[in-house]
Amino acid sequence: MKIVVLTKGLEQKHKDLICASAEKANAEVCFAESENAFPEGFEDPDVIYGFGVKTARTNPKLKWLCVPSAGVDYLMKPDSFANPDCILTNSAGAYGVSIAEHIIAVSLMMMRRLTEFYLRSSSGEWDTPKLQKSLKNCRITVLGTGDIGCTFARRAKSFEPSSLTGICRSGVCSEPVFDRIFKIGDLDKVLPSTDLLVMSLPATSETENILSRERIDLLPEGAYVVNVGRGSAIDEDALADSLDSGKLGGAALDVFKTEPLPSDSRLWHTKGLLITPHVAGNLTVEYTMDRNVEMFCEDLLAYAQGLPMKHVVDRNRGY
Amino acid sequence: MKIVVLTKGLEQKHKDLICASAEKANAEVCFAESENAFPEGFEDPDVIYGFGVKTARTNPKLKWLCVPSAGVDYLMKPDSFANPDCILTNSAGAYGVSIAEHIIAVSLMMMRRLTEFYLRSSSGEWDTPKLQKSLKNCRITVLGTGDIGCTFARRAKSFEPSSLTGICRSGVCSEPVFDRIFKIGDLDKVLPSTDLLVMSLPATSETENILSRERIDLLPEGAYVVNVGRGSAIDEDALADSLDSGKLGGAALDVFKTEPLPSDSRLWHTKGLLITPHVAGNLTVEYTMDRNVEMFCEDLLAYAQGLPMKHVVDRNRGY
Repeated sequence: MKIVVLTKGLEQKHKDLICASAEKANAEVCFAESENAFPEGFEDPDVIYGFGVKTARTNPKLKWLCVPSAGVDYLMKPDSFANPDCILTNSAGAYGVSIAEHIIAVSLMMMRRLTEFYLRSSSGEWDTPKLQKSLKNCRITVLGTGDIGCTFARRAKSFEPSSLTGICRSGVCSEPVFDRIFKIGDLDKVLPSTDLLVMSLPATSETENILSRERIDLLPEGAYVVNVGRGSAIDEDALADSLDSGKLGGAALDVFKTEPLPSDSRLWHTKGLLITPHVAGNLTVEYTMDRNVEMFCEDLLAYAQGLPMKHVVDRNRGY
Repeated sequence: MKIVVLTKGLEQKHKDLICASAEKANAEVCFAESENAFPEGFEDPDVIYGFGVKTARTNPKLKWLCVPSAGVDYLMKPDSFANPDCILTNSAGAYGVSIAEHIIAVSLMMMRRLTEFYLRSSSGEWDTPKLQKSLKNCRITVLGTGDIGCTFARRAKSFEPSSLTGICRSGVCSEPVFDRIFKIGDLDKVLPSTDLLVMSLPATSETENILSRERIDLLPEGAYVVNVGRGSAIDEDALADSLDSGKLGGAALDVFKTEPLPSDSRLWHTKGLLITPHVAGNLTVEYTMDRNVEMFCEDLLAYAQGLPMKHVVDRNRGY
């Protein structure tokens, strides 16, 4: 078995773990800079750990692609895999901690108006008190109750919200962290009593524009929206209209329909919109990278022994 | 019994609760704009709820002053009370929730570099990933384990820090939320293994400059400091030196030796310093004001019945 590792930013400890796992799996491993330059003897790898998108599309000999991202929407095209039986695993589960911290941070920044206080103080101005909101007694709805939604909910619970509602496709969540769970079909019933809507959905045909203009209108005055899943889930124009009209209290977007966000996008100038450049789940957080590598190595040992792998993507669902 | 309420920002529901409590306590109550304009018949009130600092100093008939702040350092001068037996109560206990949220917010803003991402994106720039830190596996030390320190610790625990250490005068904390508690004398032993130092101390002679230059030097490279107590607790110049040298990872100050922070202060230009204008415990948060009024009303009923009041300040300790 030959493995090419393309994942960037690995430290020596990560490389050591990968090499030790490869040895146990009776595999040869090499670390490559890009798909355009596989080392000699590794031109047709069995396994790629990294963004081996081009190889997956062109090389029918690839048996397993493990991507270091949680989202895999960019691998869901009909021609994404030259080998129709190629296994695809992702790294969902590595990002929950970092993204949950991002959600808490941007929610509090908006509710406590820290962006305004910060901007004033960075220009040397001692600002006056402003109306602030709290996560305590807040009605929180989490749309998407996977690793990210649950990891956020565990943290959010400690802030004593008045309700913590989860919404997901199945209506069943593996973890008893929410006060109540609804199916996506019940979304319209939950939105009118939502003060903070957290969106952590994969990009699938079902989630496209799920936060439509009509649904944004169902949110109460002063509500906040945070999106850390995929930009395709929101009607961005409708969100900007609602923010500009002053109806919503604020929104924090880390993901967009087009990334990087085009320089002529109206979102750059939308009132009360906190933009971050897709950094909620950066691999620059040590824990995220550690988990990412550990998860690949766990699956590698399972793969070598013909045991079930933990992080296989269901290509019909798209996550 | 005559009560003057000076507290600002009360809503009708708060006034209603105060009036209902006063009726139960057999007291007359009035709401005044300032100490310079007490309504007729209320020139010599028995009780003031609000910042009745001038009246306390000049009117020996005042029997009880309840201030809506947690800190009471501004009432600890020898001539602060014309009536030496005047009871002083504060509103410690109302601010924990809001200030805990502030601490979590600014800590994550620093560790996740959200101020940088935010400043770039507010000028229309899609920034590149930067090294980020996490509260997970972070060694957190909380200096001051009163209401604020404990309320923060309960929230911080959900982020899975590797340690949560409390430090206080007595070495005993009423709540089992910390992994371990030390006395203030042990501070020097704890600082070298502290990644995030949270300071929530009252201003007393014991806490003045407690974070001295020598102690700042004991913190590890890249450590973060958050102060929400009183500005007197930090050697501000030493902190600025350490930040400017790049040794500390960052600091977030909500309180300063002089407030408002003078326009010529070097702190406005100190590297990695997040300044907020004493807004961590604003009364503009609904919950804070609710609790503030409830606490006064609880004590009012106790006072009227000659029972022990819950929020009496120990003037020897100064909090």
